[in-house]
Amino acid sequence: MGSDLKKESLKLHKELKGKLEIVSKRKVTKENLPLLYTPGVAASCMEIYHDRVKEYEYTGKQNTIAIVTDGSAVLGLGKIGPQAAMPVMEGKAILFKEFGGVNAIPICLDTYDTEEIIQTTKHIAPSFGGINLEDISSPRCFDIEKKLDEELDIPVFHDDQHGTAVVVYAGVINALKLVNKTSDRIKVVINGAGAAGIAIAEFLLKNKFNDIILCDSKGIVHHRRKEGMNQVKEKIARITNPRGQTGSLADALGGCELFIGVSVRDILSEEMISSMAKDPVLFTLANPDPEISPERAKKAGVKVIATGRSDYPNQVNNLLAFPGIFKGALGVRAGRITFEMKREASLAIASLVKRNDLKPGYFIPHATDRTVAEVVSDAVRFAYKKYGA
Amino acid sequence: MGSDLKKESLKLHKELKGKLEIVSKRKVTKENLPLLYTPGVAASCMEIYHDRVKEYEYTGKQNTIAIVTDGSAVLGLGKIGPQAAMPVMEGKAILFKEFGGVNAIPICLDTYDTEEIIQTTKHIAPSFGGINLEDISSPRCFDIEKKLDEELDIPVFHDDQHGTAVVVYAGVINALKLVNKTSDRIKVVINGAGAAGIAIAEFLLKNKFNDIILCDSKGIVHHRRKEGMNQVKEKIARITNPRGQTGSLADALGGCELFIGVSVRDILSEEMISSMAKDPVLFTLANPDPEISPERAKKAGVKVIATGRSDYPNQVNNLLAFPGIFKGALGVRAGRITFEMKREASLAIASLVKRNDLKPGYFIPHATDRTVAEVVSDAVRFAYKKYGA
Repeated sequence: MGSDLKKESLKLHKELKGKLEIVSKRKVTKENLPLLYTPGVAASCMEIYHDRVKEYEYTGKQNTIAIVTDGSAVLGLGKIGPQAAMPVMEGKAILFKEFGGVNAIPICLDTYDTEEIIQTTKHIAPSFGGINLEDISSPRCFDIEKKLDEELDIPVFHDDQHGTAVVVYAGVINALKLVNKTSDRIKVVINGAGAAGIAIAEFLLKNKFNDIILCDSKGIVHHRRKEGMNQVKEKIARITNPRGQTGSLADALGGCELFIGVSVRDILSEEMISSMAKDPVLFTLANPDPEISPERAKKAGVKVIATGRSDYPNQVNNLLAFPGIFKGALGVRAGRITFEMKREASLAIASLVKRNDLKPGYFIPHATDRTVAEVVSDAVRFAYKKYGA
Repeated sequence: MGSDLKKESLKLHKELKGKLEIVSKRKVTKENLPLLYTPGVAASCMEIYHDRVKEYEYTGKQNTIAIVTDGSAVLGLGKIGPQAAMPVMEGKAILFKEFGGVNAIPICLDTYDTEEIIQTTKHIAPSFGGINLEDISSPRCFDIEKKLDEELDIPVFHDDQHGTAVVVYAGVINALKLVNKTSDRIKVVINGAGAAGIAIAEFLLKNKFNDIILCDSKGIVHHRRKEGMNQVKEKIARITNPRGQTGSLADALGGCELFIGVSVRDILSEEMISSMAKDPVLFTLANPDPEISPERAKKAGVKVIATGRSDYPNQVNNLLAFPGIFKGALGVRAGRITFEMKREASLAIASLVKRNDLKPGYFIPHATDRTVAEVVSDAVRFAYKKYGA
């Protein structure tokens, strides 16, 4: 990050002293106070008391979510804790509002304990219509999401997993059109077996990608490997890597047609790229610096490239997904966010780049395009109506 | 409550679908997105990571509180639960904002367990600069507040206790001026030994009222009584009731000069009032219907009366206290809300009725007077600077 950008951002944060404001939809007057508060407010309370579902009619639950984090895996910064995570959570909250019209409240928890995170989130759930889990480290994030998804009657969504997977898949759909390849016949290598890598692998599998190899810092994840494994990797090892490859990332890349990196900078070399299939596609999403710079990748002959950065074409940015996904799910009061909703969201995002506009320099919509959330929201509603939740 | 008011309030709630909105202080643009969110936001995160106190400079913690409830003692409605409590909590939040400029977020907990409420509130505390406990039933509210006050480094304030006590004392200061009596020489009877009654008793004791009798539905609270006691009543029994009276509320009232009711409607009779001292003062705060109607009390010869209602003169409304108390405490980053802050808040509220304006029909400022919060906030800051926290 440039030091100018850093200074300017710090200055802005110091000036704002918090990016969010909680405001009243009505100016309070002597006249409306008895309606907005006691004694009139008791009428709404009793309506809800007698019929719980009315909380969606008389309160903000219908359009308010919590952004829950423990600050254990924040951006590329790692485990910086709940206090230091707050600027990111406030940033996320303003994006929810500005792009999706969704009220979002940062809840930064002072515990890293899986069970305590689950319990605390359950206890505060009555106030919210949905829970966006954010920047919780792997593999705890999987258990936390699973438990909450099972036990709460409101949507629970770990954006680092599913938001990323939805946008990656949207980009992949269009990228494959550019190279004239189809999902079921290509070899995919995903590097990075944290929240994003695992979720991308699972989502692509469900979307008919049959040949996926997942790698991490210890190389190919396979079911006979012992080092650096965990429950989630064991599970994914059983359903990926159909040819049972072993070895390093370099070994995996031979003949690979789509590389998706959610790992660390400069891990790809020109030699590794030259071992890939013809017309390879790169999603080099490590932030702030990609697995190989687009400049070097182009020199090595790659034409279709996405990164996580806004200063290169084709930015994979979760902002394309999360505001619209929650807007849609809240709008239909879905109890959960299903695979079908996520798939429709991907298709909707991909469809925003018209076939005539599609080119290597533009196959993913711009993150700040304000029409995206509406289209994604419609897609989620469509999926809810067609497939349920 | 009139059925018109009820209908109108329901209609308004249905129209608003939640009284709060979470908005961004800045419109998000392609240009400022890298400053408000990634990558620029990382600079603020790292400042806080290296020096925790900077969370007050770079985030909204400096002006954001949680309103925490379990919905166990909501208004006069009782234990209606966290979902049904939400309209009240949203109402409280808009008052915090509109009168104190404080961002307040309702957190309705799905547990009535004392320990779980404490743990959950502790876990979410990093997001907040203060905790307002609300409508949690007695005696659990005392333990919950005490533990949180001890264990958190931000102010914790149970408004049903202390907000009420602060405003009652403010009213009492002025009421006693009207009848030319002083705190140390009068007999006070408080009826109601829940959160408000206990807190009022404790606060008046600390403000040099020496002769207080607390009553509840079983009569006078005294240290030999067995029925309907709890730890908090045991404790208060040891420090009130200096003449060791026993018996009923009627027994307590003989010679009483100040009655404070936080109990139920129509519990006072004209006969009971006639047994009181000359020029008695009544704070009949039961809501919506007072312990005796002002009309009947006046017929019985009482001139100085406060109620909890906005349609009679001298409304005891916590709105006079809580926005200013939190505004002041947050403004100086006080770690707690001390007795001195509360006392200064009472004095400030009382002082807002000028001596020349003071009369039986007006001795407590109007609840919707928007100058009050500023004056109370200044008083809290003054107390912090003079006495610390």
